[in-house]
Amino acid sequence: MSLDGIYDEGNVFALILAGKIPSVTLYEDADTLCFLDIQPQSKGHALVISKWSKARNILEIEEDALAQVMATTRKVATAIRAALNPDGLHIAQFNGAAAGQTVFHLHVHIVPRWAGQATGFAAHGQGGFADADALKALAQEIRAHL
Amino acid sequence: MSLDGIYDEGNVFALILAGKIPSVTLYEDADTLCFLDIQPQSKGHALVISKWSKARNILEIEEDALAQVMATTRKVATAIRAALNPDGLHIAQFNGAAAGQTVFHLHVHIVPRWAGQATGFAAHGQGGFADADALKALAQEIRAHL
Repeated sequence: MSLDGIYDEGNVFALILAGKIPSVTLYEDADTLCFLDIQPQSKGHALVISKWSKARNILEIEEDALAQVMATTRKVATAIRAALNPDGLHIAQFNGAAAGQTVFHLHVHIVPRWAGQATGFAAHGQGGFADADALKALAQEIRAHL
Repeated sequence: MSLDGIYDEGNVFALILAGKIPSVTLYEDADTLCFLDIQPQSKGHALVISKWSKARNILEIEEDALAQVMATTRKVATAIRAALNPDGLHIAQFNGAAAGQTVFHLHVHIVPRWAGQATGFAAHGQGGFADADALKALAQEIRAHL
């Protein structure tokens, strides 16, 4: 998928927002949702999305929707830091398949990093899926700091 | 440098803001500055910073400063897309050395991506420094779309 095109109402994050498929929520407010990535790059890998913007990427997103997404990113990053004590936090937002985007509803990655571990993004699927119960327990640990 | 510590007034971006070292500006407003990275990951690699926030990372930045930085990121990303026609745009923000941060004044990377090229971040220095005149010409090309 290039940077051009139209918003696909059947993308996986639209389905999460519609309640048609489950996600493990870390935080939610009127405008944004944050949940754990089911194919995490590291422990605590979270995704932040707008609940109302139909933007596929940063070229399309409304300025206020982007500000809301980033305010939630900041808030959840702080909680992840408090809960898991990573040495670093990698914030990433991919636009277009050529940049690594795989779901075409704008989203921000929060990836905790620990010294001595790899810092790149593995292609989705390489790391496999996280255990659902482990994700739920992890979410509880992070939510305690929100 | 970990996520803890104090803001170093002598960091390279503070020196750019103080006018003590040069940069190739793409965009500037009351609150933010965007300039070309001198060790680009790809053609058009730009950095966006707050002019007033003394935040080293996303844990420290004020919510309004972050919104301002992201609004400029969105604006410049759109101009880079118009000028250079990349296939993708990689937005990244590193916090802590373990996540790849090398300058401890919060900054957002805008990295244009072209299909078939590498998508990771090379360590600084691997790619070497860009030619100063080439960067100035490139900036002119991008600024024409702002």
